[in-house]
Amino acid sequence: MHIGLVGLGKMGANMRTRLRNAGIEVTGYDRNPDVTDVPSLEELVAALPAGERVVWVMVPAGKVTHAVIEDLAGLLTAGDVVIDGGNSYYVDDKPHAELLGRTGVGFIDAGVSGGVWGLENGYGLMVGGEPELVEKAMPVFDALRPEGPRAEGFVHAGTVGAGHFAKMVHNGIEYGLMQAYAEGYELLAAKDLVTDVTGTMKAWTRGTVVRSWLLDLLVQALESDPGLGEIDDWVEDSGEGRWTVDEAIDAAVPVPVISAALFARFSSRQEQSPAMKAVAALRQQFGGHAVHAAKPGVTMPPE
Amino acid sequence: MHIGLVGLGKMGANMRTRLRNAGIEVTGYDRNPDVTDVPSLEELVAALPAGERVVWVMVPAGKVTHAVIEDLAGLLTAGDVVIDGGNSYYVDDKPHAELLGRTGVGFIDAGVSGGVWGLENGYGLMVGGEPELVEKAMPVFDALRPEGPRAEGFVHAGTVGAGHFAKMVHNGIEYGLMQAYAEGYELLAAKDLVTDVTGTMKAWTRGTVVRSWLLDLLVQALESDPGLGEIDDWVEDSGEGRWTVDEAIDAAVPVPVISAALFARFSSRQEQSPAMKAVAALRQQFGGHAVHAAKPGVTMPPE
Amino acid sequence: MHIGLVGLGKMGANMRTRLRNAGIEVTGYDRNPDVTDVPSLEELVAALPAGERVVWVMVPAGKVTHAVIEDLAGLLTAGDVVIDGGNSYYVDDKPHAELLGRTGVGFIDAGVSGGVWGLENGYGLMVGGEPELVEKAMPVFDALRPEGPRAEGFVHAGTVGAGHFAKMVHNGIEYGLMQAYAEGYELLAAKDLVTDVTGTMKAWTRGTVVRSWLLDLLVQALESDPGLGEIDDWVEDSGEGRWTVDEAIDAAVPVPVISAALFARFSSRQEQSPAMKAVAALRQQFGGHAVHAAKPGVTMPPE
Amino acid sequence: MHIGLVGLGKMGANMRTRLRNAGIEVTGYDRNPDVTDVPSLEELVAALPAGERVVWVMVPAGKVTHAVIEDLAGLLTAGDVVIDGGNSYYVDDKPHAELLGRTGVGFIDAGVSGGVWGLENGYGLMVGGEPELVEKAMPVFDALRPEGPRAEGFVHAGTVGAGHFAKMVHNGIEYGLMQAYAEGYELLAAKDLVTDVTGTMKAWTRGTVVRSWLLDLLVQALESDPGLGEIDDWVEDSGEGRWTVDEAIDAAVPVPVISAALFARFSSRQEQSPAMKAVAALRQQFGGHAVHAAKPGVTMPPE
Repeated sequence: MHIGLVGLGKMGANMRTRLRNAGIEVTGYDRNPDVTDVPSLEELVAALPAGERVVWVMVPAGKVTHAVIEDLAGLLTAGDVVIDGGNSYYVDDKPHAELLGRTGVGFIDAGVSGGVWGLENGYGLMVGGEPELVEKAMPVFDALRPEGPRAEGFVHAGTVGAGHFAKMVHNGIEYGLMQAYAEGYELLAAKDLVTDVTGTMKAWTRGTVVRSWLLDLLVQALESDPGLGEIDDWVEDSGEGRWTVDEAIDAAVPVPVISAALFARFSSRQEQSPAMKAVAALRQQFGGHAVHAAKPGVTMPPE
Repeated sequence: MHIGLVGLGKMGANMRTRLRNAGIEVTGYDRNPDVTDVPSLEELVAALPAGERVVWVMVPAGKVTHAVIEDLAGLLTAGDVVIDGGNSYYVDDKPHAELLGRTGVGFIDAGVSGGVWGLENGYGLMVGGEPELVEKAMPVFDALRPEGPRAEGFVHAGTVGAGHFAKMVHNGIEYGLMQAYAEGYELLAAKDLVTDVTGTMKAWTRGTVVRSWLLDLLVQALESDPGLGEIDDWVEDSGEGRWTVDEAIDAAVPVPVISAALFARFSSRQEQSPAMKAVAALRQQFGGHAVHAAKPGVTMPPE
Repeated sequence: MHIGLVGLGKMGANMRTRLRNAGIEVTGYDRNPDVTDVPSLEELVAALPAGERVVWVMVPAGKVTHAVIEDLAGLLTAGDVVIDGGNSYYVDDKPHAELLGRTGVGFIDAGVSGGVWGLENGYGLMVGGEPELVEKAMPVFDALRPEGPRAEGFVHAGTVGAGHFAKMVHNGIEYGLMQAYAEGYELLAAKDLVTDVTGTMKAWTRGTVVRSWLLDLLVQALESDPGLGEIDDWVEDSGEGRWTVDEAIDAAVPVPVISAALFARFSSRQEQSPAMKAVAALRQQFGGHAVHAAKPGVTMPPE
Repeated sequence: MHIGLVGLGKMGANMRTRLRNAGIEVTGYDRNPDVTDVPSLEELVAALPAGERVVWVMVPAGKVTHAVIEDLAGLLTAGDVVIDGGNSYYVDDKPHAELLGRTGVGFIDAGVSGGVWGLENGYGLMVGGEPELVEKAMPVFDALRPEGPRAEGFVHAGTVGAGHFAKMVHNGIEYGLMQAYAEGYELLAAKDLVTDVTGTMKAWTRGTVVRSWLLDLLVQALESDPGLGEIDDWVEDSGEGRWTVDEAIDAAVPVPVISAALFARFSSRQEQSPAMKAVAALRQQFGGHAVHAAKPGVTMPPE
């Protein structure tokens, strides 16, 4: 099989390697001339067999993905298939499928999990789209997914959008899991009684109820930087956590844990919290409680 | 009526004034010679009519309150009454009642709300104890509570401990209310569309569903310091919020709002959150996501 | 002054009365012939002075409001003004302003708070729009807002959309406040020590830090139905709480309290929580813990 | 090595088997004559070599554990060691160590994770106590812990109490993890777009960021009961989640996720939520909103 791969960043480049290792021919295109196989999207399309082309798009979600799909809509022909493997918002999938469908080009949305470790371990895949298109692309999915039974690393979750929806929920869960471990870590670290925090979390990596890959990674991080002294507490969020909570609100599903994990990230990025200033101001108003002056570098002890 | 008042700090001194304004004779004692009426607790006790003494204790909760009650247990005699008006933990009330009861001294626990404004507005009172003791002290309660029907500023909530329990819950609610206004304030302040944040909250002070005394105070704070630029986002917690959540856990009552308000205060006091460091470390591990170095004064933009 | 009022439901009818009581002439239109003053929107428009008409729209947010504004766009002429007083989503305001603006008709969005009590107490008002339009409609706002200083019941919060944005945040806060009182109520009710729950909350209505109009209403409800035995725990949400959390997510503002209050409502409406079924299933898997069978009417004791 | 094991319930019996499989001689005692090896605790003690006895206690935490340790304190002699492997509250450990220490008997607290799967997979172990005692009992720990490097299934976390403290935090994390997966499950189940919920979660079990043993178990549960139709949403909590949040409050550590998971369990067990009744009552008061009557079997649609 010979496929096209658009986007050769950290994820895309790894996927090209894994696909090639599995015997799939890959022509990759990236705007960066140092990593691209062909100089243009046109040449990528030209290199593939017309009417049965499969093009995997692995570029940043949103505008960039949209632009690439628009370009491909102008270059591909009936019978070809585009797979969006980025972290696209699932509501964008149907419009993309319709855009491509006007010229008979098929569309599959693929949620991809595994990060930088996917090259070695394989990628967990959740896809949405028409069964015959999914069937057509199955060799690609089989090459990317982890070793072992197909059902443990791949799912055809539903029609167009279901793949990215599943990936969105996956990431929402991920937020909650990370925050749960992080709260536990802070509790251990706050307790003098526990003299070996890293060792305690490491002892959880086999046999316990909380064992997981994320725990393995946290232990790895703690072993390389005990106390996490080299890292700031500033945490980005990538959008999928937000979409998950938006979706929950839309569906009236209570998500206290996922939302708490999201808000903790928001808080982590605030130099000063306007809300907590307001609470401090209120306490001062009714109780005459001391407040801390906002002057930089000055912290006054509370009464 | 002539009562004793132990503790003449911010709250105690105001209460002495309000009681005297209402025609109640007050002998106050404080370790601070500048504010005390008598030089010792012994003289305070001696100044009151034996067998019908009422002594109001208004000192910091915990050890100080305990010490004063122990001292009074050695000085008072059968028929006297001690009222603990501090923010004592309600579980301490029964032991105090028993300690005093050994010599026939009665005990009332009184939750007092109103802060520095109580002198003028009166104090909301919640008391626990034997009905005949509460009856005996009623002139004091009537003098302290706000004008208007007794039931709108005073309650005999139950037996010993009920007053402080009610006050504890009152403060837990207070945490939730303050945080709700604070979150709303931050949302308004974050939106360019809203050009008059203070004015908007001020417009809520009459007629709306959210009108309250706390809102009045927040508007006052915003009018004196628009944007709250002079105040730090550091918020203390006084213990009663913690007890409320402990109690909820004990009673298996879900308190997502009160606990969230408490945790927001904890977070406000952290220079660095160990938990969020752990989340940042995890993201770096699995995704190769950029982290912010922990060096002081250095903040790197996220990728 | 003579204005038009479209929508004479619970809120609209009350507002018509309050306006008339204040000496403002009102021509009201409603599809319900029993309450309308004129048989059609056309006749409502015809009854008002061209070029200086003010039409207050008070119909359900969303499709109904949109349809009325479209109809008015076809009937009104340059110099007229439409005020949307419903609970519209603020993002709909700009399109409505543009639609009306094509023929020179002005638009003001007005957030209105006060519920069924507004007739008597006045309504808290937050408006958005051009200053000259707001000035023009000021007699209407002055008639609707509560007695007292204008700034305590009215704000010109910003340009188009700011009024409904402010109302949305107001309602988000309202969710948080209600939940805070409700959690406190449950804590009191769960404690045998407290023998007078209603009385305790009533004692908070004056002098205390938590006094508010919502508290007054809760006491009223408890007095008419002690223990709330006549009411189910099913709680609707009207949309504005959802929008508030959506907005917070968009602005990266942490809203743990408002979101917790929203999720508590979602939970209150679930017969069975799929999430908690999953947790129960997990406990059974790893610990052999007993689960409750899902058969109706059957509850087994836990181990 | 020859040790005593008190408590042969689900966990204890499995541990006896695993220890024996590893070549450790075990004399077990249980009040249930069908499973015990000896008729009394006295005979268990008599069967072991004096001065170097190791007795593992595996009985319900709290009163039962306390009673067994008191009994052992009267039977054991200097040089012996008691290991409490139950889910004891860590604050009980120091008193137990002191009680045993009076006669020179050593004490180790051991947190044990792994549930019913531990027999086969081994148990994750976290222990607290004096290094020489831990060293002495190491053959027992090595037999119980999972295969592989010792540090991945065992930790000497600190002095007395550290083992149970670590286990408590482990369980707190467990609550958060379970709730995160559960919320994600509900989101998937609520979305028509996703036609294979079980398959989607199964596809996460390899390669993805959220893969874990709990996820494996959830997939197992879903495969045996798709839709979880046979299980009620009633979820017990075992005490350790409560202790974790109590501890967090004591240490001023924000734990929004762990507490949310705990409160979700509390809510799951309420037939009617008094708090949500209060919110419903409030909405009725200010808005005239319809409420649902509390009559059994009657549900009225909201307006």
